[in-house]
Amino acid sequence: MTTGVWLIGARGSVAVTSAVGAAALRAGLTEPFGSVTHLLDNPSLPAFGDLVFGGHDVVCVPLEKKVESLVAAGVMPARISHALGTEITALQDRIKPVPTAATQRETADLIAQDITKFRDEFGLDRVVVINVSSTEPVPAPHPAFDSLDALEDALSGQVLPSSALNAYAAFLAGCPFVDFTPSTGARLPALHEMALQRGLPYGGRDGKTGETLVKSVLAPMFAMRNLRVRTWAGTNLLGGGDGANLADPAANAAKAGSKQRVLAETLGYQPQGSSHIEFVDDIGDFKTAWDLITFTGFLGIGMRMEFSWHGCDSALAAPLVIDIARLTAAAHAAGRSGPLTELAFFFKDPIGDVPHALSEQWALLSRFARELADG
Amino acid sequence: MTTGVWLIGARGSVAVTSAVGAAALRAGLTEPFGSVTHLLDNPSLPAFGDLVFGGHDVVCVPLEKKVESLVAAGVMPARISHALGTEITALQDRIKPVPTAATQRETADLIAQDITKFRDEFGLDRVVVINVSSTEPVPAPHPAFDSLDALEDALSGQVLPSSALNAYAAFLAGCPFVDFTPSTGARLPALHEMALQRGLPYGGRDGKTGETLVKSVLAPMFAMRNLRVRTWAGTNLLGGGDGANLADPAANAAKAGSKQRVLAETLGYQPQGSSHIEFVDDIGDFKTAWDLITFTGFLGIGMRMEFSWHGCDSALAAPLVIDIARLTAAAHAAGRSGPLTELAFFFKDPIGDVPHALSEQWALLSRFARELADG
Amino acid sequence: MTTGVWLIGARGSVAVTSAVGAAALRAGLTEPFGSVTHLLDNPSLPAFGDLVFGGHDVVCVPLEKKVESLVAAGVMPARISHALGTEITALQDRIKPVPTAATQRETADLIAQDITKFRDEFGLDRVVVINVSSTEPVPAPHPAFDSLDALEDALSGQVLPSSALNAYAAFLAGCPFVDFTPSTGARLPALHEMALQRGLPYGGRDGKTGETLVKSVLAPMFAMRNLRVRTWAGTNLLGGGDGANLADPAANAAKAGSKQRVLAETLGYQPQGSSHIEFVDDIGDFKTAWDLITFTGFLGIGMRMEFSWHGCDSALAAPLVIDIARLTAAAHAAGRSGPLTELAFFFKDPIGDVPHALSEQWALLSRFARELADG
Amino acid sequence: MTTGVWLIGARGSVAVTSAVGAAALRAGLTEPFGSVTHLLDNPSLPAFGDLVFGGHDVVCVPLEKKVESLVAAGVMPARISHALGTEITALQDRIKPVPTAATQRETADLIAQDITKFRDEFGLDRVVVINVSSTEPVPAPHPAFDSLDALEDALSGQVLPSSALNAYAAFLAGCPFVDFTPSTGARLPALHEMALQRGLPYGGRDGKTGETLVKSVLAPMFAMRNLRVRTWAGTNLLGGGDGANLADPAANAAKAGSKQRVLAETLGYQPQGSSHIEFVDDIGDFKTAWDLITFTGFLGIGMRMEFSWHGCDSALAAPLVIDIARLTAAAHAAGRSGPLTELAFFFKDPIGDVPHALSEQWALLSRFARELADG
Repeated sequence: MTTGVWLIGARGSVAVTSAVGAAALRAGLTEPFGSVTHLLDNPSLPAFGDLVFGGHDVVCVPLEKKVESLVAAGVMPARISHALGTEITALQDRIKPVPTAATQRETADLIAQDITKFRDEFGLDRVVVINVSSTEPVPAPHPAFDSLDALEDALSGQVLPSSALNAYAAFLAGCPFVDFTPSTGARLPALHEMALQRGLPYGGRDGKTGETLVKSVLAPMFAMRNLRVRTWAGTNLLGGGDGANLADPAANAAKAGSKQRVLAETLGYQPQGSSHIEFVDDIGDFKTAWDLITFTGFLGIGMRMEFSWHGCDSALAAPLVIDIARLTAAAHAAGRSGPLTELAFFFKDPIGDVPHALSEQWALLSRFARELADG
Repeated sequence: MTTGVWLIGARGSVAVTSAVGAAALRAGLTEPFGSVTHLLDNPSLPAFGDLVFGGHDVVCVPLEKKVESLVAAGVMPARISHALGTEITALQDRIKPVPTAATQRETADLIAQDITKFRDEFGLDRVVVINVSSTEPVPAPHPAFDSLDALEDALSGQVLPSSALNAYAAFLAGCPFVDFTPSTGARLPALHEMALQRGLPYGGRDGKTGETLVKSVLAPMFAMRNLRVRTWAGTNLLGGGDGANLADPAANAAKAGSKQRVLAETLGYQPQGSSHIEFVDDIGDFKTAWDLITFTGFLGIGMRMEFSWHGCDSALAAPLVIDIARLTAAAHAAGRSGPLTELAFFFKDPIGDVPHALSEQWALLSRFARELADG
Repeated sequence: MTTGVWLIGARGSVAVTSAVGAAALRAGLTEPFGSVTHLLDNPSLPAFGDLVFGGHDVVCVPLEKKVESLVAAGVMPARISHALGTEITALQDRIKPVPTAATQRETADLIAQDITKFRDEFGLDRVVVINVSSTEPVPAPHPAFDSLDALEDALSGQVLPSSALNAYAAFLAGCPFVDFTPSTGARLPALHEMALQRGLPYGGRDGKTGETLVKSVLAPMFAMRNLRVRTWAGTNLLGGGDGANLADPAANAAKAGSKQRVLAETLGYQPQGSSHIEFVDDIGDFKTAWDLITFTGFLGIGMRMEFSWHGCDSALAAPLVIDIARLTAAAHAAGRSGPLTELAFFFKDPIGDVPHALSEQWALLSRFARELADG
Repeated sequence: MTTGVWLIGARGSVAVTSAVGAAALRAGLTEPFGSVTHLLDNPSLPAFGDLVFGGHDVVCVPLEKKVESLVAAGVMPARISHALGTEITALQDRIKPVPTAATQRETADLIAQDITKFRDEFGLDRVVVINVSSTEPVPAPHPAFDSLDALEDALSGQVLPSSALNAYAAFLAGCPFVDFTPSTGARLPALHEMALQRGLPYGGRDGKTGETLVKSVLAPMFAMRNLRVRTWAGTNLLGGGDGANLADPAANAAKAGSKQRVLAETLGYQPQGSSHIEFVDDIGDFKTAWDLITFTGFLGIGMRMEFSWHGCDSALAAPLVIDIARLTAAAHAAGRSGPLTELAFFFKDPIGDVPHALSEQWALLSRFARELADG
């Protein structure tokens, strides 16, 4: 089952680590650490070797240079980039500049054509489109978001944020779409309608790779023990392109909201404190997050916990992108359409009325993988 | 359903916090933070107001003085101890000195008589015996541990460690027994045989209150994400009576072993590093634990996490003692005998082939509580 | 040498802890932990028992109630507040509402009258005025700040921020003035001129009580070892009145600037990262600060350090307020006028071209105390 | 002023990083981060380019392999090892196997011959001998340690620990000796006598590279602020050869004692808590230390601080070895003999009645460097 993975933001750190990492797995150069589908593997999922990566990007930094910078930053071993020179060159050719046109309708058509051409050229059974580009500001509400008819009319102008336009184009090309960022993606009533109409699954949003991952197991722990969390305040120091983007207050707001949701969902109330994001260029991709949690126990006694997380964002995100591609491809093959709520395990801000505790998300995901296997 | 809670080590911090705390709950002086059965409550469980505390202790510090020291240490609010003067005096009368005799058989008889007298005097439906005394060294193996017949013969001498002798005496008195410490308790084939013969449930061991609680959600997180944990090393600084006792290398060994088990059980392998325990008198009951976790992600990239836990041990343990008393009483009432594996949620070193991930233990416990309710 | 300590913000946590704490020291109820002048004591300094506290405040919460809240928050032991009931009542009478008038000149006259009345009523040799009120926003520049003549003219309107008006009034009353906050205080050319004209010393600013204190020893450590600091980023979580005030972006900016100065001054360059302040009401006076420092060592190898500081702000500030009162009184008695640069040890943003490394500030301060003793 | 640096343990991580690092500095391949003498540089000190490294080692791992492992461990950039192939080969030839003989006297003669041969072969003005080998257990007291005569007699047998025998041999060869480890080195009355007799300086001991360095600025901070430290407890996780050696309880005891000395010396009392060392192979050279400090402030209020230090031990130690070589060579050239107390800045357990606060040690060292410059 050959499967294309079309990445929006295909020259970014997460995208390149995903694509080169998948090649490394295929070549047996690395163990599949960080890969969740390795634990859930079954014949319904395309194999690592069945994945072909391509995508769009607005920047045009040569891929070799990007790989070099990932090696220098400690995100990728030099050994792996050296061994995969040919694959990297081939990947370079499969990344296209983002098309532009006078109206969003025309742009969407051009995007869809690029995806279709990719599918045809490589004889792919299907293509999963995944957004791994920079976080957008939250768009102002617009009536065209609410129904497909209204949206179709409005596409004669500029109405959709970029992530949503890409979702539209993916659906146009008959492809599932997943948003790995906090951006809008397919989460508009109009796009939901379109996905159902065309029988396409979609998923998201905002990959859960670090601080929120930890929250999704610690918060349920406090809940199960009936310990009352009073404060949960955190700070995230990060550099790299994602960090620079999040230094923009509008993007930051989208992200920070997404990061706190897990607390209210798993505790049943919102503790004091917020999740602060600060851009520190020197930190690079090795994000440091620190959280303070204060809580009340028996007889009102106050206690506290702190944690620091030093994770390499791209190395945490990349195997999840591959996981999502494999699972979404299998879901599409199995005829699923609409929101893939079973993928909640992967996201900070999952779609639908789903559990936010990681263990329950895991149960949901494991069952989903088994069902795909059982056909 | 009036229920006696007979505590071994009844003048210790955990015991006194449990007994006074239950009185505070009954009197509506405090919210039930830290109480797990508050979340799982159902009519099969004795109410907080149905519990009567008593017990044995080798020390004879006046209870008022012990309560004062707990208030001074910040474990109990002055407000609560002031309001409960009468209850504290009454409790004082229900704590007896540990009886001694020439043989362990005679000692066991005297212990059982004290428990029976307690049950009769207060007209209790049943009594649950819980060990919250100091951790013992691991005993050397002895053939008398292996069958009840052999044990009965050997009781003409001194063969059982104190915790096991108390379990024996509890069974003699027709009472369930639970070990909240890492000591031997009822976990000997001979005592298992005795429990089954007499139709009594038992449980344990080593209450999971701090660092190990956190491990039991973090380790599954790493496992579910297929992140390879390389090192998990921790240090526990604690004072108080428990700290002084654990400064003894033999007791320390019993405890430290218990603390690492969760890693191998949930990860499927044993990472490097150990769990160090150090007695620091000044720290008192507000234990500080610090753990370092290093792990390998995608493409072999190394990452790390640290956490500090500042918990008040007695305030964390006491509501669990009450929870265990309520659940064990209900299990006894429902006719359960043998090991209560469903209580794994409460223990570092649970009995039986049970899950060690907290969320799975929670599922087991919730189902158990529902089954008790459904009769 | 009886000495008045007139506090701006006299009902705030720092003020009340200072005043009640000085009474506790006088009464021998507590050891002088946190008191720097205890280490430097000499006959030139007024004794703890020679200090009389009074002041102004815009709020009128009864002092008994404020003391109660400090006890509840763990800032002051109940034992001490109980023993000092009479002193607290007496202190209550020495705190006056802030006078208001049509022009700042008239307001200043009324403030000065209150201070003079306080000096006369208690037969004080001198009064030191110290600002411990909420942090103000940084004022816009104004030509009246630059010379005393211009300022005198402008006082027919509203030109000075409150802290500076208080400094003006203190000088009018013939009293030294010190700013313990990041506000403007006496640091305007016009007020400097006035202090010199009247032979009065002044000092400040922004008491160094927690994170910056630690920075003032760690940054020199990196400098002395020639380790290149790349990032120094921190977050401060605090509640209480000060926290709420600093949640205001303008006040926050004043504070955050003050907190980073020590790095550039001791390292010789400004590392990346900033010092973030977040208001979390639940945290109260027990501020938690966390800092991450990344640095480069031999052969360009990157390393890192983190620290968490859990300090009780009022308990850290109060003894310094007493120290500053004692030292400033002695300096005034010795005829010093103008900026007291030797007090740099106490401040985040000290006056003058002074060292910022704590050990050098200590040397300066110790010499100053010796000189005062030698007359 | 060509200067030999003869290292005991010359194939260890610290030694190789020092020698290759000095070559990198000479070649202009790296900035002198971590080098203290770079800050204190003056013509009395041999230049980086004047240093020639050699030494003894009991192991015979090829140097190229050792360098490779340092690169793999992240201690040395690949770029530097690649550029210095020739220098590494040359260094390899200057490292000799440790000679052995029937008596310690004969062994000492052979060691001294190797050093003399090194000095002659490379036409060196002088050679400084520095011990960077594994930590020894503390030796039992012996009467031969107390006078040179007694020692000379006893050398017909085996009386000295290896580090002291090397000091003896260094003195025999007319060379200064410095111990960078916690071992005995020259710190025996007999060897002190010998150094004075021969007009040779010596120094040590136990390089201050991480946790103790931080202690040496934080403990004085608490002292200067009159904050009473109650607990100072720490844990050190480290791998590598040094870690494996310190897992031996005897060596561990030598080290842990050395690590706590700074507290009593700078605070004036010994707080509770100890400094724990644990070997974790996976951690390698990037040692992680964590310390908890609890302290009492004004009115008896308890507070706390924690820090984590993630330092690369060899990268921290190596530039100090170079610093010590430069300074000791200049001291020898200036005719200094006996203990070099001015080098206290570099050591956990410095010789003589010297300050332990880093800033005072810095003042001492800076003055020393100036005096050497002034001749």
